[in-house]
Amino acid sequence: MSRARLPAPPDLAEGALRIVALGGLGEIGRNMAVFEFAGRLLVVDCGVLFPEEDQPGVDLILPDFGPIADRLDEVEAVVLTHGHEDHIGALPYLLRLRPDIPVVGSKLTLALVEAKLREHRIAPDVRPVDDGAVITLGPFEVEFLAVNHSIPDAMAVAIRTPAGLVLHTGDFKMDQVPLDGRITDLNGFARLGDEGVDLLMVDSTNAEVPGFVSSEKEIVPVLDAVFLRAQGRIIVASFASHVHRIQQVIDMAALHGRKVAFVGRSMVRNMGIARDLGYLRIPGGMLVASDDLAELPDDEAVLICTGSQGEPMSVLARIAGRNHPITVGPTDTVVLASSLIPGNENAVFRVINGLARHGAHVVHKGNALVHVSGHAAAGELRYLYNIVKPRSVLPVHGEWRHMRANADVAQSVGIDADRVILAEDGTVLDLQDGEVTVAGYVPVGFVYVDGAGVGDVTEASLKDRRVLGEEGFISVFVAVDIVDGAIVAGPEIHARGFGPDDTLAGALTEQVVEAVERALAEGADEVHDLQQRIRRVVGSWVQSQHRRRPMIVPVVVEA
Amino acid sequence: MSRARLPAPPDLAEGALRIVALGGLGEIGRNMAVFEFAGRLLVVDCGVLFPEEDQPGVDLILPDFGPIADRLDEVEAVVLTHGHEDHIGALPYLLRLRPDIPVVGSKLTLALVEAKLREHRIAPDVRPVDDGAVITLGPFEVEFLAVNHSIPDAMAVAIRTPAGLVLHTGDFKMDQVPLDGRITDLNGFARLGDEGVDLLMVDSTNAEVPGFVSSEKEIVPVLDAVFLRAQGRIIVASFASHVHRIQQVIDMAALHGRKVAFVGRSMVRNMGIARDLGYLRIPGGMLVASDDLAELPDDEAVLICTGSQGEPMSVLARIAGRNHPITVGPTDTVVLASSLIPGNENAVFRVINGLARHGAHVVHKGNALVHVSGHAAAGELRYLYNIVKPRSVLPVHGEWRHMRANADVAQSVGIDADRVILAEDGTVLDLQDGEVTVAGYVPVGFVYVDGAGVGDVTEASLKDRRVLGEEGFISVFVAVDIVDGAIVAGPEIHARGFGPDDTLAGALTEQVVEAVERALAEGADEVHDLQQRIRRVVGSWVQSQHRRRPMIVPVVVEA
Repeated sequence: MSRARLPAPPDLAEGALRIVALGGLGEIGRNMAVFEFAGRLLVVDCGVLFPEEDQPGVDLILPDFGPIADRLDEVEAVVLTHGHEDHIGALPYLLRLRPDIPVVGSKLTLALVEAKLREHRIAPDVRPVDDGAVITLGPFEVEFLAVNHSIPDAMAVAIRTPAGLVLHTGDFKMDQVPLDGRITDLNGFARLGDEGVDLLMVDSTNAEVPGFVSSEKEIVPVLDAVFLRAQGRIIVASFASHVHRIQQVIDMAALHGRKVAFVGRSMVRNMGIARDLGYLRIPGGMLVASDDLAELPDDEAVLICTGSQGEPMSVLARIAGRNHPITVGPTDTVVLASSLIPGNENAVFRVINGLARHGAHVVHKGNALVHVSGHAAAGELRYLYNIVKPRSVLPVHGEWRHMRANADVAQSVGIDADRVILAEDGTVLDLQDGEVTVAGYVPVGFVYVDGAGVGDVTEASLKDRRVLGEEGFISVFVAVDIVDGAIVAGPEIHARGFGPDDTLAGALTEQVVEAVERALAEGADEVHDLQQRIRRVVGSWVQSQHRRRPMIVPVVVEA
Repeated sequence: MSRARLPAPPDLAEGALRIVALGGLGEIGRNMAVFEFAGRLLVVDCGVLFPEEDQPGVDLILPDFGPIADRLDEVEAVVLTHGHEDHIGALPYLLRLRPDIPVVGSKLTLALVEAKLREHRIAPDVRPVDDGAVITLGPFEVEFLAVNHSIPDAMAVAIRTPAGLVLHTGDFKMDQVPLDGRITDLNGFARLGDEGVDLLMVDSTNAEVPGFVSSEKEIVPVLDAVFLRAQGRIIVASFASHVHRIQQVIDMAALHGRKVAFVGRSMVRNMGIARDLGYLRIPGGMLVASDDLAELPDDEAVLICTGSQGEPMSVLARIAGRNHPITVGPTDTVVLASSLIPGNENAVFRVINGLARHGAHVVHKGNALVHVSGHAAAGELRYLYNIVKPRSVLPVHGEWRHMRANADVAQSVGIDADRVILAEDGTVLDLQDGEVTVAGYVPVGFVYVDGAGVGDVTEASLKDRRVLGEEGFISVFVAVDIVDGAIVAGPEIHARGFGPDDTLAGALTEQVVEAVERALAEGADEVHDLQQRIRRVVGSWVQSQHRRRPMIVPVVVEA
């Protein structure tokens, strides 16, 4: 809960397990938990977070590896629960620091990881495991349990040490009739619950949502209606990892006598992997290359692409902006068969409006059941808590509102409030003799990837960007001869992003000249002092004339 | 639909009515429609649009008054359908140009307008009308019909000229059991329908939503459950104009023996107006001043404030950020009894997360029915179309996706596709002998209010802001003596918002010096030419070293 920042933790007691999240608590993304026992470390997940609008220009946000940066040799392995970016996306940046860390996960997860790492020119030491496997990684005994999620082959992870038993759900839901028949292993959860789970780390994403998530199969009649009504092309946008959703689209295309083409790099790559490994079935002759799509009659074509989150460079955004060979019109139907990730609303609606403007029919989760969530809602979480009967609970994978709601769900089925821990990234939990205590805090921050740089962009740069982006800047350049007390060149006054540019230089030049000359006459002999005076005179002029606060960049040089 | 830009319209034929929207088509906001007959103009609504994230730093966006700017003397009146900002907010900027334009509307609408205009030191010529009134404004006969919306006293407007009959719904829904018993006047709509409506202009906001909007009263049991469960304070955030929503909160407070306080300037002001005019009823002794709130026991207090859209300076955002005397904790309940306007998601969830982090229970439309929309859904629109039986339809008040969906609804009840017009701001429609034709296009753009300036901020400034906000800038100042072919001062290299600042100046100085000296040696004698060379060398260095594209601002002065 809201707590004063905690002190640094004491040394880890013998026989105790330490747990620290380096990301994923208080945010949906950059999931990464570090487990420590007897001087050895085990990492569960290593994901990225996508930036929000107050983090402009940032490409990705990584977990803060700081607390383990000088202990990477002690890492036994990275265990991955599933292949989504928010669980695997930061792996290239961790393996850059030590490429031979073993990477453990299911077959599909590791295939996606290897494809990603190839782009970073890293060949990881992968160790595939099956559902139900129990393996030993240093002092950690790790058991893997099947869970159902919006990507195949997801797993929960149970970690046994002499300190006690921890169960980490990963991302999961409890669809009782999933496409692949692989349901969340409640029998396994029950067995662990009977054995005694000391700490349950639980996906919080949908804890605010009452009831149960609809089954993936409930999308079938909706897709069927869309296909029945569609006169021309059908364009389906979804996540490139949602194999089951795409399987349903393919099945529906087969039913309605249409062929399908994958468009977009990640979609083509991932569907190739899923097909090679047997997770995706495409009837013979149904798949066409996207280049051959134009040769099909419109009413026999289904195009499957990414861009469901409104990404500006995606195929879908380019179609919407008439910046793509495919020109949609009133006979075409576009289906956004995906969630709308908070923060992407404007981008997504911009794409939908662009498509609607050209007359296309757009079907999305706002007007039809073409998406179901991959995360357990409150009703499912209650089953989980009652089956596992954990001694303590740590809500993970969520913003504060989700973790708070998850804590409420846990308490609603009788788990004592004192045993439901709301922690933030960097909070140190120690487990000993089955008891979890909050032991302290290690400082962690946001690590920004921007262009080629990792960590170059700081909070200060982002603050500057926010000011520049809202208000623009005014720069004033003056060269002075301090000995003679005279302006040698300038002032040159420039404004960008400010707005009323035209009148600016004229109105300001005189004031700047006056301020600088007065300062020099008063004996000012420091460039910094002159700059301060310029900043003040420009700032108050802009505020009084325009009620605005652009960044003011005075540069004085001695000539 | 998607059409090539149209030519300028021909002169308006005698006996024809011309209709041009200066805002509100393709966007939710800045609603403004201009009607022209026999050389006279009638304006319906004059609202603002709130900026999106790709319009950084902008305070407000106005309709483009350009097409009528030199014809304001011909305006008979501005008719207002209701008192929401997206229908009245631009009035101060129009009346600044001609303060004596008569302003016609219902009692509450005009009271809100007068309060707003007082802040702009404008005393408008207001002309209140009641439901059912028929008035003459120059060549226009205007009839007002009651409609139900999320603010009391909203009206539809029927405009009769010899050219035909136009019905403009304004914003409306069809709650059959509204709090004030004032239902949408379907009898009036039926009478007009039987008379023959030549053009129906229809609110599109909720056309994508199937079915019917729940009644405002369905919130009662939800609020009751919230009040029953609440142990400490209850803080309700809503729109300062949603009189009925706030009435329900007050009624619930009375039922549960709590007192209420209004907090925030617009909430205090508007509720004062609503109460004075008899739209809001507060039982005696129940209202306390916000300063006296602290003296009440927590479980007897209800605080009603704005901030439901996450506005950073609002009371609610300040409470969430621990930047307000009220410190919420685990016993407190916060209710966001409002819609979540698209584009505000991040801001709203930031506030909810802040509150959840301090332990407060947050109830919002995502987890409980504490809000119903103010706009007719598709089912209601079908009633409208079948009752009015319009000859032609113009979907208004919506983004393209909403207008497209509204067109589909109209066609679904049998209105011919050729008679459903999808137009954009500036599209000119002419009505003659009951027939609507698209006559051309007048150029309209976005008019940005930023600080004290109206229209100073251009698309070019916004483009600069976007680059600055994403990438920051690098500025390079050099003073040269062109005659001597030498650098006199500098280069001074500064970067803001860029990120890897530290190494920048060192790495670049030499390259800039070299580029400038080479240029001077080659006989370059134009400042502009030198600046171009600096831009090129810096740009390619940054791209190759950092894969980034900051704004590069080279300034060369002659000393």
